[in-house]
Amino acid sequence: MNYYEESLKMHEKFKGKMGVASKVTVKTKDDLSTAYTPGVAEPCRKIHENPEDIYRYTNKQNTVAVVSDGSAVLGLGNIGAKAAIPVMDGKSLLFKEFAGIDAFPICIESQDTDEIVSIIKNISPTLGGINLEDISAPRCFEIEEKLQAAVDIPVFHDDQHGTAVVVSAAVINAAKLTGRTFSEMKAVINGAGAAGTAIAKMLMSLGITDIVACDSKGILSAERDNLNVAKKKLAEITNKDNISGTLADAVRGRDLFIGVSAAKVLTPEMVKSMAKDAIIFAMANPEPEILPNLASAAGAAVVGTGRSDYPNQINNVLIFPGLFKGALAARASRITQEMKVAAAFALAEIIPENELSSENIIPTVFHPGVADVIAAAVKKAWEER
Amino acid sequence: MNYYEESLKMHEKFKGKMGVASKVTVKTKDDLSTAYTPGVAEPCRKIHENPEDIYRYTNKQNTVAVVSDGSAVLGLGNIGAKAAIPVMDGKSLLFKEFAGIDAFPICIESQDTDEIVSIIKNISPTLGGINLEDISAPRCFEIEEKLQAAVDIPVFHDDQHGTAVVVSAAVINAAKLTGRTFSEMKAVINGAGAAGTAIAKMLMSLGITDIVACDSKGILSAERDNLNVAKKKLAEITNKDNISGTLADAVRGRDLFIGVSAAKVLTPEMVKSMAKDAIIFAMANPEPEILPNLASAAGAAVVGTGRSDYPNQINNVLIFPGLFKGALAARASRITQEMKVAAAFALAEIIPENELSSENIIPTVFHPGVADVIAAAVKKAWEER
Repeated sequence: MNYYEESLKMHEKFKGKMGVASKVTVKTKDDLSTAYTPGVAEPCRKIHENPEDIYRYTNKQNTVAVVSDGSAVLGLGNIGAKAAIPVMDGKSLLFKEFAGIDAFPICIESQDTDEIVSIIKNISPTLGGINLEDISAPRCFEIEEKLQAAVDIPVFHDDQHGTAVVVSAAVINAAKLTGRTFSEMKAVINGAGAAGTAIAKMLMSLGITDIVACDSKGILSAERDNLNVAKKKLAEITNKDNISGTLADAVRGRDLFIGVSAAKVLTPEMVKSMAKDAIIFAMANPEPEILPNLASAAGAAVVGTGRSDYPNQINNVLIFPGLFKGALAARASRITQEMKVAAAFALAEIIPENELSSENIIPTVFHPGVADVIAAAVKKAWEER
Repeated sequence: MNYYEESLKMHEKFKGKMGVASKVTVKTKDDLSTAYTPGVAEPCRKIHENPEDIYRYTNKQNTVAVVSDGSAVLGLGNIGAKAAIPVMDGKSLLFKEFAGIDAFPICIESQDTDEIVSIIKNISPTLGGINLEDISAPRCFEIEEKLQAAVDIPVFHDDQHGTAVVVSAAVINAAKLTGRTFSEMKAVINGAGAAGTAIAKMLMSLGITDIVACDSKGILSAERDNLNVAKKKLAEITNKDNISGTLADAVRGRDLFIGVSAAKVLTPEMVKSMAKDAIIFAMANPEPEILPNLASAAGAAVVGTGRSDYPNQINNVLIFPGLFKGALAARASRITQEMKVAAAFALAEIIPENELSSENIIPTVFHPGVADVIAAAVKKAWEER
């Protein structure tokens, strides 16, 4: 199947993938007088008197905006707000299909971080949550942080945290399968952008503290003088033995490789240099850091990628629908680290321990009930905060 | 039926009136790969190469934002963005139900005109049109003008122009019924805010040039020293004999009264002082400037109000769905005066001349096919510009 051709056909036929739907009908004068004037004045009055009534009389609690400025869309780069629409529309579709959430795309022309924050805050009254998407690093960090400080609804940059949570679920099960404990695991993360940073923080929350991060120029260390602010911070919280060198130096003797980088950068020789029964999550899209068959042949015990045509697909759609569903149900004002950890464990535990195998360490995208299981765990984590 | 109670129940039961709807399903890996990654990259690439393809591969051409800052909501005043949601959600519902347009509410916290313009412009990539709603005068004039200059899609402040167009349709048919020509008609408009100003301009476009406008302090004239900028401009284009005085002075001998003001300000004595077979459109909500039975008893030949429980309901829902449908189909970059005039004539002509009567001068809200008839006329007017 040629997905590019099919996708063009689908988009042209349906004019995008999402529309709006009425929840009530307007067929009579009474319908009109109830849904619109004069009746509609009453819920307005109630919300004006008591702002909390917004949750009672509007769709706020089930509404999420999928927001992008088009600055880092898929692997296409800075293609701008207009060209980003099909992705944001698609993400909205996944929110609806996997969690019943009413999501819609907001594509912003400005690429000024403060202006983006102000725009989203200003249009937030109708929103129960905000999913940031495909915004370039390091701008995405600042936008997420400032926006979350400005609004009382959850802000979630899926490219960072969705990726980090879903790969954490895979790490949890791969550790079980290979008999490892988190405290003794040594990890390498290749890719030191938004996703890599979020993954490092999630691994630390799991208890994996020995982490080395690499970018395309090699290991992040105190010695590197070509690091931006975000990478400097990442270097500070990783690489506790302060080693230097290339990716080949980084992986030697390590248990876990997580790649959010580029095709083919992990060679079979590098895998052979890792610890016995190594765990490899090679998530570069569309072509992974190493092909699964090569990694297995070189001794890896577990291999996962971002692709649906190999076992163990590490796909954000396993996380964000349920995570938002839980956060919205709890009326959480933000997404805490505990909620993310709860989501990772909930996803991992969907596979019973006796069904774990090297080709079955994470549920498939269409595993029934995933979003509800995650939502329940996330809601509980917020309520027990 | 208690519409306030029913409306509260409806809003609580359904959590507002609108949600989103998927136009495609995501049940298989192929679905996911076509609607989302990797397939979705292809429409993104196409739009990036040729921005016009946004109309080919997204829902832009059928999407309208219903935008308010909550500064003048119904008769409730400046109740703010949150409390305005039920009205904007209701307007979105009417767009969907009457014209199949995918409309959604954007309620903006800021009440700074330039900031509002900038916010809407910035989120306009997904939009085919912008319906401004319940924004206070004179700010609404500035926002509409600046926003229309900033975007290449139609901007329409329904409180002004929707009202003006629908009442113009009623005027067209009332003139026919009472045997008047536009050039000989003398009109009074009571209410010199956003709607009153737009009505004056529409009447002039029809050819009714002898208009006197009043506010709550009386006739707008060059002598008045208590007029804001908008009212000063209105005074300049109306009142060609430069008369002064009260509403009672204004209506004497006039053929047409249009009220967008307050309950009971037009007395039977005033109607008696008007020309024989006067035409009265008393649109104050919920209580009109004069009750229809009183106006008729005082000699009016045609009476219309904003209410559904009297004949001749002058309701914007007769106009905005079809007007946007036509503008979107034509891919118009703005709404021209010619498009509004075309919409008014199209609505008026839905009633055959031999069916016109004092109680049937405008189609009812649920008259079948109204939106399509108006859309066709509006599209034609744009294409013949």
